[in-house]
Amino acid sequence: MNGIEDFLLEKARKTEQALEGYFASWNGAPAELAEPMRYSLFAGGKRLRPGLVLGAAMLVGGDDESALPAACAMEMIHTYSLIHDDLPSMDDDDLRRGRPTCHKAYGEAMAILAGDALLTMAFDVAAQTGDAAIVREIAHAAGVEGMVGGQVIDLMSEDKPLTVDALRRLHSYKTGALIRGSVRCGAMLGGANAEQLAALTAYGERIGLAFQIADDILNVTGAEADMGKPVGSDEAHHKSTYPALLGLEEARRLAGEQVASAIVALDGFGAEGETFRDLARYVVERRK
Amino acid sequence: MNGIEDFLLEKARKTEQALEGYFASWNGAPAELAEPMRYSLFAGGKRLRPGLVLGAAMLVGGDDESALPAACAMEMIHTYSLIHDDLPSMDDDDLRRGRPTCHKAYGEAMAILAGDALLTMAFDVAAQTGDAAIVREIAHAAGVEGMVGGQVIDLMSEDKPLTVDALRRLHSYKTGALIRGSVRCGAMLGGANAEQLAALTAYGERIGLAFQIADDILNVTGAEADMGKPVGSDEAHHKSTYPALLGLEEARRLAGEQVASAIVALDGFGAEGETFRDLARYVVERRK
Repeated sequence: MNGIEDFLLEKARKTEQALEGYFASWNGAPAELAEPMRYSLFAGGKRLRPGLVLGAAMLVGGDDESALPAACAMEMIHTYSLIHDDLPSMDDDDLRRGRPTCHKAYGEAMAILAGDALLTMAFDVAAQTGDAAIVREIAHAAGVEGMVGGQVIDLMSEDKPLTVDALRRLHSYKTGALIRGSVRCGAMLGGANAEQLAALTAYGERIGLAFQIADDILNVTGAEADMGKPVGSDEAHHKSTYPALLGLEEARRLAGEQVASAIVALDGFGAEGETFRDLARYVVERRK
Repeated sequence: MNGIEDFLLEKARKTEQALEGYFASWNGAPAELAEPMRYSLFAGGKRLRPGLVLGAAMLVGGDDESALPAACAMEMIHTYSLIHDDLPSMDDDDLRRGRPTCHKAYGEAMAILAGDALLTMAFDVAAQTGDAAIVREIAHAAGVEGMVGGQVIDLMSEDKPLTVDALRRLHSYKTGALIRGSVRCGAMLGGANAEQLAALTAYGERIGLAFQIADDILNVTGAEADMGKPVGSDEAHHKSTYPALLGLEEARRLAGEQVASAIVALDGFGAEGETFRDLARYVVERRK
């Protein structure tokens, strides 16, 4: 796994540098708002979504430079969703990545506004690609037929046992859409042709599902020190999960099947696709 | 005022038709999310911001068709800001436009998500102009150096007496930026030249300030039946307002001065500018 971890680290560093640049350019922002935004954004995330944006761009012959705004926008949107999901009226979580959640550190009002601000500025950043189609791709992934729609389905499903199909739909919205959208934005900005875009969309779709199953498994089996939050929280919230519905072994098999199928989608890319093949494996083998 | 009210009504009808079309296109959205979004969006607002977008486009020779996505986006963002401002951790308001606020009707979690969704989809809609510069204009107006930044300054200023300059800065961010941005987007989409854009930016700036002073005055003197919410709420929240700082008469004089100065900014437009001159007057003479 070292190769792929190095790849993600390098892309994370570039993304963080670009994010710092954006914050520096917003010099009229009240410091009291920029602080909670930064607190949550620079909290040591894996930067998986930026890695997917930049990796997809590279895979179709593009460069980091032109894809970086989309990479930053996706990470900002991911961060806003964590801040709002943690709120007392949602999951009511106190810890995230080993630190107090944003509302625990700054109060509820400021956490809501920091999330709103990250979401808003993500679109300012995305539009710096100069490409309105990228803005639409990101809004779609984060929107009513994507992430925020999935969060609503999730809230309505608490204390209700779901079928595997319903759980799959929930996660295809809640986490899958942003992962698939990250791969698609990178491909589009890198100049993918229609066939490449279709292959990478299938890849994104499948690793999105594998990622979520792995997340559910880690919530049961993970080490609290690795996760930075209490394990077993899904069970405590009475959430339907893949291990709960299928058992651990079957959940692991299903995740493995998605990874294999994601790798098949990359057949057309030859040796150049190796990083993304490793990334698909990493998605289920990671420890946090 | 009949002429300008008819103008606003006509543009409101067009905007609402376009918004209905967008909702119809999001057919994968969970009904439980679309409902609170629609509850707050179709609550009989004045549609001032869409009127500004469409009016500015018309004034520089553009048409409604190409400016409508920005008009809808601005109204969606205005609505999301009202939903989040009303939340218990913010202003904790129970009534808005004569009806229970979104969180009173749907619960706090769903209100937060409906706001998030309106904000996200506003950018999908804005990007349907095909113009990334419009997306940036809107994100800037709604962002850390605009509306959400202003809300932070507002929260931090409760129970603290502000100077007139600090109050002006607060409102230039909190309400002024979206009003100015609406005029600017309409002008840009209508094909304004640099001189027209500068004149309309000055106009937007000045009616934005006049609008806020008038709002503060209405909060003191307005009829509860017209306002659809309790009058005197600013005082109850210990908010600095223009009437509180300057007295009613001086606040009225300042609003009138801004209107006059907004009208001067339209000098270059001749007879064509009459609607926007009326609109500037309407902003301070309205009863709600």
